Amino acid sequence: MKAYPECIPCLINQGLNAVRKLKLPKEKELEIAKRSLKFLSRFEEFDKSPAYYAYFIQQIVKEIAGTEDPFKEMKKLANQIALKMLEELQKDYQKASDKLAFSLKLSAVGNFIDFAVKGLFDVEREVKELLKKDFIVFDYEIFKERLKDAFCVLIIGDNAGEIAFDKLLVKTLKDMGKEVVYAVKGKPILNDATMEDAEEVSMTKLCKVIHNGSDKVGTWLEDCSEEFRKYFYEADIVISKGQANFETLSDADRDIFFLLVAKCNPIATETRGIVKGLIFKYKN
Amino acid sequence: MKAYPECIPCLINQGLNAVRKLKLPKEKELEIAKRSLKFLSRFEEFDKSPAYYAYFIQQIVKEIAGTEDPFKEMKKLANQIALKMLEELQKDYQKASDKLAFSLKLSAVGNFIDFAVKGLFDVEREVKELLKKDFIVFDYEIFKERLKDAFCVLIIGDNAGEIAFDKLLVKTLKDMGKEVVYAVKGKPILNDATMEDAEEVSMTKLCKVIHNGSDKVGTWLEDCSEEFRKYFYEADIVISKGQANFETLSDADRDIFFLLVAKCNPIATETRGIVKGLIFKYKN
Repeated sequence: MKAYPECIPCLINQGLNAVRKLKLPKEKELEIAKRSLKFLSRFEEFDKSPAYYAYFIQQIVKEIAGTEDPFKEMKKLANQIALKMLEELQKDYQKASDKLAFSLKLSAVGNFIDFAVKGLFDVEREVKELLKKDFIVFDYEIFKERLKDAFCVLIIGDNAGEIAFDKLLVKTLKDMGKEVVYAVKGKPILNDATMEDAEEVSMTKLCKVIHNGSDKVGTWLEDCSEEFRKYFYEADIVISKGQANFETLSDADRDIFFLLVAKCNPIATETRGIVKGLIFKYKN
Repeated sequence: MKAYPECIPCLINQGLNAVRKLKLPKEKELEIAKRSLKFLSRFEEFDKSPAYYAYFIQQIVKEIAGTEDPFKEMKKLANQIALKMLEELQKDYQKASDKLAFSLKLSAVGNFIDFAVKGLFDVEREVKELLKKDFIVFDYEIFKERLKDAFCVLIIGDNAGEIAFDKLLVKTLKDMGKEVVYAVKGKPILNDATMEDAEEVSMTKLCKVIHNGSDKVGTWLEDCSEEFRKYFYEADIVISKGQANFETLSDADRDIFFLLVAKCNPIATETRGIVKGLIFKYKN
């Protein structure tokens, strides 16, 4: 998808939010805002995905934070909190009559939560509230139909923390006899899950985990490794998680199931969902 | 007050919101965003008030809308809705044991409502909800003390619609024997009240109304008429309404009572209030 005009101020806000989340000195906020302005003001057209511009804003964040992995500690914390919660949630999973639908919902809910920002208590309450909601867009029948003949399922992961919640989806698909491959980022970008996170939450013990060889926001196929592209094009089913992967793969040359929570108007519009709505959308 | 870094994306959003409110063609949004980016990217420091930058963003809005008064129709509608509501509210005012406190609150509530955007029903509900709230910052004792010896009170108005709600404050002060002067903008800017609005809501029949000779966002004293500055410096009490007037007058060289609802974090921080909180703050 192409960036909307309202993505422009939001991109600047993303940089400012990073400064706050990382607890960098206050004066860094103005530096981020000014450099984001200068970067964005060079474009005559905004015909790339929001994630395209977001990548360069995050490069500014990395430079100002003075580290290649500014969200490292937050990712560790997010994994710990999500794993802790998963113990409880596994009981609900066991009770669920439709385990596939439950694990899809839990995976979408995981996409919405910023595990490392609030305390465990608030996260638990938020997850419980979100699990009560129905999907706003739910292409479940198509999914089950496609799943019948599928052998290999590729899940393109999104954030640390969230990756722990995806484990039940992987387990469910494996219990159905599918081969599951889970893809993470090749290098740190934002709080996106990397191989380190996959190991921390033991996703590596559950299924084959590959990295995409890229440090971009979302999935820029042209920047990904040959191995990732092979799985992307040859998997029978691709499940893509989160907004940035939707932004960068919504026009990709294969069919995809997008699993996410819409966090803003442009994504709600593009997915025909609503803001804060759980989305499981098929594009062919 | 000086702009906060988070004012920068907000300023771009203000331009985009104007396009939507004015129902201009969608493609104008990108134009506004791009021109705002280019304008803002020229600054090395952001040491002026947010309203300073907002003025230039609104100049871009005027140019793109192709009119000097793009909010003209919205202002008329806001006045009509506010006047309609005032009929009901006058009964509550009659019942109020402390008419001064009630009229201050109604005036603050009027500052929060975008009368022309929602329907009458929604506005009525919103006003009722807001009237139940207490002031978060309420320098009422100082105000009553200062009022004892005061002869002339200047009220610096803010928006169309809101100006109708201010009539009860003017009436109350007049009933206390004060001379009240109400100031509006010299020329159209945003949905700020001008002499036309003062006439539409019959403020002109209630007290002396002056215009400040300026078309700036907020009150830039150096851009205001001699007449306005005379009242500003010679009035015994100045009540300044809304965020933009707070932004531009918070460092002014006289004491002021600021009456507003904080609509964002920077203003909540500067007024020591909270977002959506009713504020009546004295600065000496």
